[in-house]
Amino acid sequence: MKESRLCSMLGIEHPIILGGMGGISDGSLAAAVSEAGGLGTIASMSYTAEELKAEIDKGQSLTDKPFAVNVSLLRPDAGDLIEAVLEKGLKTVITAAGSPKKFTAALKDGGATVMHVVANVSMAMKIAEAGVDAIIAEGTESGGVASREEITTFTLIPQVVDVVDIPVVAAGGIGDARGYLAARALGAEGVQVGTIFLASKECQTIGDVYKHVLIEADDAATGIAGRGAIGLRMIKNAFFDEVEKAAAEGKSGGELFQFMESKMGAAAKDADNGAFVCGQVTGMIREIRPVKDIIRDIVDGAESALKELN
Amino acid sequence: MKESRLCSMLGIEHPIILGGMGGISDGSLAAAVSEAGGLGTIASMSYTAEELKAEIDKGQSLTDKPFAVNVSLLRPDAGDLIEAVLEKGLKTVITAAGSPKKFTAALKDGGATVMHVVANVSMAMKIAEAGVDAIIAEGTESGGVASREEITTFTLIPQVVDVVDIPVVAAGGIGDARGYLAARALGAEGVQVGTIFLASKECQTIGDVYKHVLIEADDAATGIAGRGAIGLRMIKNAFFDEVEKAAAEGKSGGELFQFMESKMGAAAKDADNGAFVCGQVTGMIREIRPVKDIIRDIVDGAESALKELN
Repeated sequence: MKESRLCSMLGIEHPIILGGMGGISDGSLAAAVSEAGGLGTIASMSYTAEELKAEIDKGQSLTDKPFAVNVSLLRPDAGDLIEAVLEKGLKTVITAAGSPKKFTAALKDGGATVMHVVANVSMAMKIAEAGVDAIIAEGTESGGVASREEITTFTLIPQVVDVVDIPVVAAGGIGDARGYLAARALGAEGVQVGTIFLASKECQTIGDVYKHVLIEADDAATGIAGRGAIGLRMIKNAFFDEVEKAAAEGKSGGELFQFMESKMGAAAKDADNGAFVCGQVTGMIREIRPVKDIIRDIVDGAESALKELN
Repeated sequence: MKESRLCSMLGIEHPIILGGMGGISDGSLAAAVSEAGGLGTIASMSYTAEELKAEIDKGQSLTDKPFAVNVSLLRPDAGDLIEAVLEKGLKTVITAAGSPKKFTAALKDGGATVMHVVANVSMAMKIAEAGVDAIIAEGTESGGVASREEITTFTLIPQVVDVVDIPVVAAGGIGDARGYLAARALGAEGVQVGTIFLASKECQTIGDVYKHVLIEADDAATGIAGRGAIGLRMIKNAFFDEVEKAAAEGKSGGELFQFMESKMGAAAKDADNGAFVCGQVTGMIREIRPVKDIIRDIVDGAESALKELN
């Protein structure tokens, strides 16, 4: 398949990026994805700057290959987190929420590559102007925080590709080789995937209950909880209904998020009573596999599928 | 590109099907799509059986090529409509809502090919068992009636392809050659498109205001009105807000639909005060073009894009 600009830009073999899932994408999972030729990402969400440094150390002890850290620019200590990343010598930062404009110069001076996550075309244009190196365009089928516009990957990617010159990464809905090939067909130069790595052997931050839920889930298993106030895509279960009830009672986005967070990740111990954040592709997951196999099947499968289409 | 089974099955050159848009897809538009090598579809929604026959006559006066009729099986006179289609010698019926089981035998005996529209995997399995010839799997980004599950094209298509042996047609979100190629990459053997033909020169059932709205709309311009009660994707404007208000006041799905219908199609005379039903791909529409050009660009563009990916 046609070479992606992302590979040379990020120093990776395959343009497959681990989504930085808060409380889940740690140094081990990031290292596993990077070792397999993709780009691992540590999610900074649940760490202080000091804790993040320790997690980066852990990742670097497991791989010599590059990995990234994602940072929400809404955090008051976003600058500290970015400083920690640069101090540790990482070369890629994935920013989300707010504008990276304020940090672009410092990141560039530090030799970093910056990718920013967007969910609509107007943000993509603004972000490209802010000088980032690549854009991650995330469709509404993705797990976690849902954009208000709820634009799907299928319609979002080509429209973002049309307005920017930098590489676009497709996120949301990519479950296997077909999804990777389709993303490339839409004009993306790579993919960011979370859910399928959530269901990997190397994802040790969640328990067996979570993985079992992912395997059992069908195509219609997820929904957006707290739509209008906060909006998080997760498995529809009894806890989902509780969140919806709290939203209907007028709880704020912050309150709802706190409520959901209390049952996320390792805290999701019971299939009915946990916030099992994941994308719609969970319906495609049938078993828990090593990261290496997941990436190999995407890359090899896409090559075969491309040949077959021809 | 790899030959699609749909072409021989439907007697067409390109596996591109006109979505049967109620009150919009008439005999003229259907004939235009068929003349250009796709499969036109007359939407039976706004016709009695007798009126449908007249519309089929009109279509047949404009083309010798095959076209289809879509029929909602929820209509009490669905049997009459199907009889009208067979009487007029058409060979393809697209059914939606309910189960085609009751009608499959009569349609097959009449020599017809049956395709049924689904929005989730479990319905796809049921429908395939009912003996239809192909499945149209429609993602939530499509215009018009939205499924409760809101599964996107990107995740729906591969999951449907995995559970049926018959050809799958992708609907929802396909705006150009890239979308067509991506649908094929996901395993679909063809596409059903509505919005981009809505914005065609040959679509004469809507006025200039409607077409202007489609051109002006961006990626985030549509939403699902009446979610939970009925759910229709259309342009977010003042009328959309009125529908949402009526839904919040507890109006039933039927009442909401009637309200929306009063401002649909030719009745949508004012950009603020009309139900401009369309899919998320409206953001990709920049001009009103002939059907022939739209289809040619999809087919030729997909071949080039495929070569370029290789």
